[in-house]
Amino acid sequence: MNWFGAAYYPEHWPRERWREDARVMAYLGINVVRIGEFSWGVVEKRPGQIDFTLLDEAIDALYSEGIRIIMGTPTAAPPSWLLKKYPGVLRMDGDRRTPVAAGRRQYCFNSPRYRIETERIVSAYVDHYGKDHRIIAWQADNEYGCHGSTLCYCRNCAGAFREWLRERYGTLDNLNQSWGTVFWSHTYGDWEEINPPKPGPVSPNPSLVLDYRRFSSDSAIEYHDIHKEIIKKSSKAPLTHNLMVNFTDIDYRKLARKIDFVSWDNYVAGEYDPDLQALNHDLMRSLKKAPFLVMEQQPGRVNWRSVNNAYPSEQLAFWIKQSVAHGAFGSLVFRYRQFPFGAEQFHGGLLNYDGTMTERARVFAETIKELRNWKIEDPQKEAAIYIDYENFWIGETDNLNGNFRFLFDSILPIYKAFRNFGYNVDFLFPGESPQSYSFVAIPSAFKLDEDFVRDLLKFKGKIFITAMTAQKDQNNNIRVQKADDFQLLTGIHVVDFGGLEGPIKVSSCKNVFDCDFVAEEIEVLNGCQTVARYIDGPFKGKPAVTVKENCYYVGTIPDVESIKRIFLEASIERKAEGSARLLSMRSYRVILNPYPYSLRLKIGEEIHSLKQYEVKRI
Amino acid sequence: MNWFGAAYYPEHWPRERWREDARVMAYLGINVVRIGEFSWGVVEKRPGQIDFTLLDEAIDALYSEGIRIIMGTPTAAPPSWLLKKYPGVLRMDGDRRTPVAAGRRQYCFNSPRYRIETERIVSAYVDHYGKDHRIIAWQADNEYGCHGSTLCYCRNCAGAFREWLRERYGTLDNLNQSWGTVFWSHTYGDWEEINPPKPGPVSPNPSLVLDYRRFSSDSAIEYHDIHKEIIKKSSKAPLTHNLMVNFTDIDYRKLARKIDFVSWDNYVAGEYDPDLQALNHDLMRSLKKAPFLVMEQQPGRVNWRSVNNAYPSEQLAFWIKQSVAHGAFGSLVFRYRQFPFGAEQFHGGLLNYDGTMTERARVFAETIKELRNWKIEDPQKEAAIYIDYENFWIGETDNLNGNFRFLFDSILPIYKAFRNFGYNVDFLFPGESPQSYSFVAIPSAFKLDEDFVRDLLKFKGKIFITAMTAQKDQNNNIRVQKADDFQLLTGIHVVDFGGLEGPIKVSSCKNVFDCDFVAEEIEVLNGCQTVARYIDGPFKGKPAVTVKENCYYVGTIPDVESIKRIFLEASIERKAEGSARLLSMRSYRVILNPYPYSLRLKIGEEIHSLKQYEVKRI
Amino acid sequence: MNWFGAAYYPEHWPRERWREDARVMAYLGINVVRIGEFSWGVVEKRPGQIDFTLLDEAIDALYSEGIRIIMGTPTAAPPSWLLKKYPGVLRMDGDRRTPVAAGRRQYCFNSPRYRIETERIVSAYVDHYGKDHRIIAWQADNEYGCHGSTLCYCRNCAGAFREWLRERYGTLDNLNQSWGTVFWSHTYGDWEEINPPKPGPVSPNPSLVLDYRRFSSDSAIEYHDIHKEIIKKSSKAPLTHNLMVNFTDIDYRKLARKIDFVSWDNYVAGEYDPDLQALNHDLMRSLKKAPFLVMEQQPGRVNWRSVNNAYPSEQLAFWIKQSVAHGAFGSLVFRYRQFPFGAEQFHGGLLNYDGTMTERARVFAETIKELRNWKIEDPQKEAAIYIDYENFWIGETDNLNGNFRFLFDSILPIYKAFRNFGYNVDFLFPGESPQSYSFVAIPSAFKLDEDFVRDLLKFKGKIFITAMTAQKDQNNNIRVQKADDFQLLTGIHVVDFGGLEGPIKVSSCKNVFDCDFVAEEIEVLNGCQTVARYIDGPFKGKPAVTVKENCYYVGTIPDVESIKRIFLEASIERKAEGSARLLSMRSYRVILNPYPYSLRLKIGEEIHSLKQYEVKRI
Repeated sequence: MNWFGAAYYPEHWPRERWREDARVMAYLGINVVRIGEFSWGVVEKRPGQIDFTLLDEAIDALYSEGIRIIMGTPTAAPPSWLLKKYPGVLRMDGDRRTPVAAGRRQYCFNSPRYRIETERIVSAYVDHYGKDHRIIAWQADNEYGCHGSTLCYCRNCAGAFREWLRERYGTLDNLNQSWGTVFWSHTYGDWEEINPPKPGPVSPNPSLVLDYRRFSSDSAIEYHDIHKEIIKKSSKAPLTHNLMVNFTDIDYRKLARKIDFVSWDNYVAGEYDPDLQALNHDLMRSLKKAPFLVMEQQPGRVNWRSVNNAYPSEQLAFWIKQSVAHGAFGSLVFRYRQFPFGAEQFHGGLLNYDGTMTERARVFAETIKELRNWKIEDPQKEAAIYIDYENFWIGETDNLNGNFRFLFDSILPIYKAFRNFGYNVDFLFPGESPQSYSFVAIPSAFKLDEDFVRDLLKFKGKIFITAMTAQKDQNNNIRVQKADDFQLLTGIHVVDFGGLEGPIKVSSCKNVFDCDFVAEEIEVLNGCQTVARYIDGPFKGKPAVTVKENCYYVGTIPDVESIKRIFLEASIERKAEGSARLLSMRSYRVILNPYPYSLRLKIGEEIHSLKQYEVKRI
Repeated sequence: MNWFGAAYYPEHWPRERWREDARVMAYLGINVVRIGEFSWGVVEKRPGQIDFTLLDEAIDALYSEGIRIIMGTPTAAPPSWLLKKYPGVLRMDGDRRTPVAAGRRQYCFNSPRYRIETERIVSAYVDHYGKDHRIIAWQADNEYGCHGSTLCYCRNCAGAFREWLRERYGTLDNLNQSWGTVFWSHTYGDWEEINPPKPGPVSPNPSLVLDYRRFSSDSAIEYHDIHKEIIKKSSKAPLTHNLMVNFTDIDYRKLARKIDFVSWDNYVAGEYDPDLQALNHDLMRSLKKAPFLVMEQQPGRVNWRSVNNAYPSEQLAFWIKQSVAHGAFGSLVFRYRQFPFGAEQFHGGLLNYDGTMTERARVFAETIKELRNWKIEDPQKEAAIYIDYENFWIGETDNLNGNFRFLFDSILPIYKAFRNFGYNVDFLFPGESPQSYSFVAIPSAFKLDEDFVRDLLKFKGKIFITAMTAQKDQNNNIRVQKADDFQLLTGIHVVDFGGLEGPIKVSSCKNVFDCDFVAEEIEVLNGCQTVARYIDGPFKGKPAVTVKENCYYVGTIPDVESIKRIFLEASIERKAEGSARLLSMRSYRVILNPYPYSLRLKIGEEIHSLKQYEVKRI
Repeated sequence: MNWFGAAYYPEHWPRERWREDARVMAYLGINVVRIGEFSWGVVEKRPGQIDFTLLDEAIDALYSEGIRIIMGTPTAAPPSWLLKKYPGVLRMDGDRRTPVAAGRRQYCFNSPRYRIETERIVSAYVDHYGKDHRIIAWQADNEYGCHGSTLCYCRNCAGAFREWLRERYGTLDNLNQSWGTVFWSHTYGDWEEINPPKPGPVSPNPSLVLDYRRFSSDSAIEYHDIHKEIIKKSSKAPLTHNLMVNFTDIDYRKLARKIDFVSWDNYVAGEYDPDLQALNHDLMRSLKKAPFLVMEQQPGRVNWRSVNNAYPSEQLAFWIKQSVAHGAFGSLVFRYRQFPFGAEQFHGGLLNYDGTMTERARVFAETIKELRNWKIEDPQKEAAIYIDYENFWIGETDNLNGNFRFLFDSILPIYKAFRNFGYNVDFLFPGESPQSYSFVAIPSAFKLDEDFVRDLLKFKGKIFITAMTAQKDQNNNIRVQKADDFQLLTGIHVVDFGGLEGPIKVSSCKNVFDCDFVAEEIEVLNGCQTVARYIDGPFKGKPAVTVKENCYYVGTIPDVESIKRIFLEASIERKAEGSARLLSMRSYRVILNPYPYSLRLKIGEEIHSLKQYEVKRI
């Protein structure tokens, strides 16, 4: 069964309206709604007075039309009485400033009191709904880490961090050694001397920073485990959590192991790029190498951008079809009806503020009707991109180039080049094997898993590695280069490196490429050949792109066009040509036109025409 | 009598100089000076030791030349001993940070201690000068809200805010209902759970934000009432307060009811635009629909800009004449003499640092001599612009477009178009009637007074409304549209809307207009006609400008040129043509050239020439 | 003996490596290394357990190859245990926020506890190494003021500031008078009412601000005195401190009196400009009018820029030769070997991370070999630029133009013009005499020493003064102009002035110049002539450049090209022509090409060719 639906907040509307809402939902083809994830204050109006009547009656109304429920645990927004009673649960920044109470995600993951309150309220929800067959899934909390809520600098966190470090390093000697604390006299003689590295003009030790990021991610996951444990004890319904777009503060690969299926919230953040949304879909599918759910689908206008623009309704249709083509087994629009109150009052929905239907609701109904006939299949294994969440954190410590953004400048261009060539893309994480793919890219993997390198030595497909890969070790220290598997694989030695203040040119026999951000001085070792050289910059005339057997190494950061040219020099076969996109499943293919004008796509000898926003199976 | 003069600080200069200053003032034509508004530390050197000798002698010296006094109460700058003795009077930001002590406006309006001290010192001034016939007016405090001093987040304010809410809403149920606190589980069960909405990455409830802005404005006015009550008990001299340019943190309409005449400080803030200064004059006149005083007239260079540029002396003449043309009954230059010490040491004055006369003093003398023959009349009632101070606060909560500035992007362009067409402009506030005008504009009145709409239904002149008008209700929630007076007036229904990331085009039969910031999808109802359509953007092809009888509605934000074209399409008569400006009083007209070059102005068939900076009665 | 070497951290490397390092150093020609300046945590691992074994053995290893030691006292980076034990030693910003502990320079100069700890640890170092002949110099602490660490707002500082003020002013009456505290009722009645002027939206009293800057600079120097006193008691080795590039928070002229020779850290901060590095060299030489040491020479890439770019090795050679040409008696590269751990892990060095030699080490060895034959001489006295560190602080209080940067917009352009004309440049400080020079420039000396003016009245060379000179008095108040020596010298009276929002034009008979930032209205007095007039701006048509005998006055801020044209109008002789640079010593001349391409330099009738980065004696 495909899940199509919306986020629904019965508590926002009069009881009398619920049955009409359910009827409209059924009319639109909705079979699932998510409820409950901000309902704590509704269920427990005053401390200890827990009452599920409202949710019960709403669920009755919905299920009377056959609509099933994804139930959210309500901890992302503690009730006002709780914050008044326990102000100590609030997060703190490095200067002990707390977030505004009248918001959400105000709490610290390591607050003992908040953990107790979480246990209490989640248990109440699970006691009440754990055996209810109408609940087809649980969502734990909501968008861990949203609003910059991953990092906290309170005393609870400082203490928990020290415990976490004790666990990881055993002895202070080991920690001091691993972090190189001899630098600037930081050597610790007592665990209590270690503090969370609050931001400031002096860069703290990069190993400390990386471990604090790891600890913070682990804290979120440990907090998630409270939900998991309680839910799993009493309920057979699968558990998920709604992940976020372009979000890297929490190791989603680790978190994904604690949920039964991946779901995520598909919003346009920053400038709209349909490939960036697709990248997120592919990443979400890759977390468990399995179909996923779009838990929140942007309907059109949102409320949290600087400019909250409107979209034509056809774009919603495109977004939903694109999700399913990339492996989504369902999609829930956020939200069912526009709510004229509260912080999200400008957010769009399927229904207008006055309860009438929008044009986009009609388009939504058509779209999900069409999609019911699609068989959900994972795209075939073709190209793979190596990714390690810890590298996002390394990328955010001081680096060669403060303008360099790991996701946007290194990963996305490679993803776009693959997609432009017509390749499906999977993401591979440390511990996974490249063997089923024909092409593996490693964009700027500062820290690179040694087992993965060993696997690559046996890999027969093409390998494409860009600058700064394997520059760091597991402690965010510089990896001192030596004759090892990475050198064996690439055939190069990085002699020196530096940031670039602007783009420079690199030239092969046939092409001139644009590169940017960093340049490495490369020594070409035995069995390796120079493909292109710097014709500019501090390493002018020296090798910039090399190849050893099937392994290309680029000592700088190429843009999309440059990557495509290197692919061509590497004789990579083009599966498709054009601005439209191709996805190949086991039993069918999908072609997609994300743009508001017609396009053609050439696949081998076939030429396909696509109308604006058209997505079709071929 | 017209009041012409300057701000004078006898405490800054040796006693021996006072009589000479008075003689020079008299020579220049000065008949009024303001003194005292920063004199607390002079009058009460140490706690409780109050001594008015210095001010007394200075007033004697001034009055010996016939110069009368506007006396300022000195509370805007508490003495150093007071801040040391009572540090609790300091304002606090959301993170409990206080302003620098060695400044001014450091105090919190709700500090009980500061209110006691205010009563004590104001009573002393009024006891001493309340019956003094030489005091022709009182100024309470100085520039309420300057330096961002309107909002405070201290515990006193939190408590006072709760009281204010109790007063407004009676019950928590009522408040919860009005604010939609069910959203994100914010429902309050205890008044103590409510806190001032400190700024942060998560947007707080917009109703809470609006009420905090209302409360903050009311707090300033309540604080002002302390001055008013004491002064009114003992003195017959009128009371004023000096308002500020482009300032919207305090509801000046409410404050204006607590003073006997409006005065304001005419400075160039931001980029100089003579229409913006004129808009402020017209707004100030409109507050009480009566002549006003320019309490502080920028002399030339100030000290508080990033770049403190010099001006030719003729510009001072222009500014003073412009004030009087717009309804000022007087103008006081800030300040009489440049003071080489303190935070404003770079501020210009009529006299040099060394006490010699500046060129601008001579120009000032000529100007006021010329103006003594003018009869001060209010401009005739022609065009009116609807304004509600609360809409500035709504406009500063999260919105469709973070780049949109209510004053500069919506009100000012309409004002400029009116002035370009030769119309006098009044501002109308909720509770006032449009009936005496021939043209009423409602620029983006997010919240629109229902009585005003009812009046407009009977109004025979032209009506011009721009996007986002009536989008919100009194609680800063989205107004759910229905068949009501506003729909009856405009003949439209706003189906959808969104922010614009840049300008788009709108086209009528005759014209193409530029619009920006937001676009509304408009449904044209019975009796309403489409004037122009979007030829771009998310609502391409749909109506953008409509007319129902005498009422034009623009579903986006037009720039000045576009407004002028719509005016022409609406057959608005041009009273004047050219870059110079026309003002029409009952018994005379004034034409003004704000620029440093000659201009012509066409009024009907008359053509008038104006020299640079020339202002003349015709 | 010339000192050539590097910063060395034996504590970062295994003991076994030290002798090899010493051999490599000797091979490269290194005769001096600096060690110890971050070694506190190494020498005193736990409180009170002081053990110099590691340093002793490292020194033995180094000296076995003839390498001598500059020993740093280790107070710039207190050990972790100290910060845990005494958190009160941390600096505070105006809102009582402390810097991150895991950094460096976290301490407050006025912390009594940190002063005690400083005495204790410095005494230990001096007791141990005070008589050691291998120690050829001491460096006290490291880079006072780095990371914005000069200013502190803690209670200790507030108390010490009040003491400092008592010392300076004697009575509160005197202070109140000097500061003009009558403004805004700030008059102090008790020393305790005075507080450090924390930053904020309201500008505090400029006299208070200047005195707080003076006090803060004095605090750093007073803290330095602790080191000086202890070292001088027991050691005959000279004492230095490593000053910083473009750094003006501490009065280096005052600090220079407390050290035996000046040393500084030659890094490229901001955009690279070889003249800016040269200016810093000349400034450092001028502090004691004596040869200086480059204590840290940037090797190539650093780690603390936003973009950490690489440099060709030849640039290091150029930098070292440029230093010596400008009067350095030695140069130590920072650092000997790249360290893969800690906050500076991306910083370059002479050796690679893996201990192998870099190309730049080879270039370094060649360079110092070549330089051993140079005789270190001070450049001859030709042109001089007046500088007063207090003027930097005045320039940072509110001013006419917030875009104006005293060093970059006023001093540097004049320095560049002098250098372009082939003149050596010295800097002159208050208390020094211009008599030995042929040309003296006074760029925007807001406050100008009266004795210096008196000297100038007798000076026969050319004098070149730019706008805002003598605008302020010693208290950062406006200097009220009168018939005095400055007027006698310049022949002008500044009638008015203002900031400029962009460049304006000034014209003489022969030339049109570009000027910017501020414009002064100048009255030309007896004996003075107008050289050029404003053809733009608020003082259009009035004098902009004047000359009285040998003294040129420019009432605005000219750019480099404009200064060169005024020099030509003033018949200043060009000693050199071209983009390369000339330095003239008593017994030889040096010509320098800072650029990566060949250049010619014309000196009188001689024409010299220079290869890229070439520096040669002629």
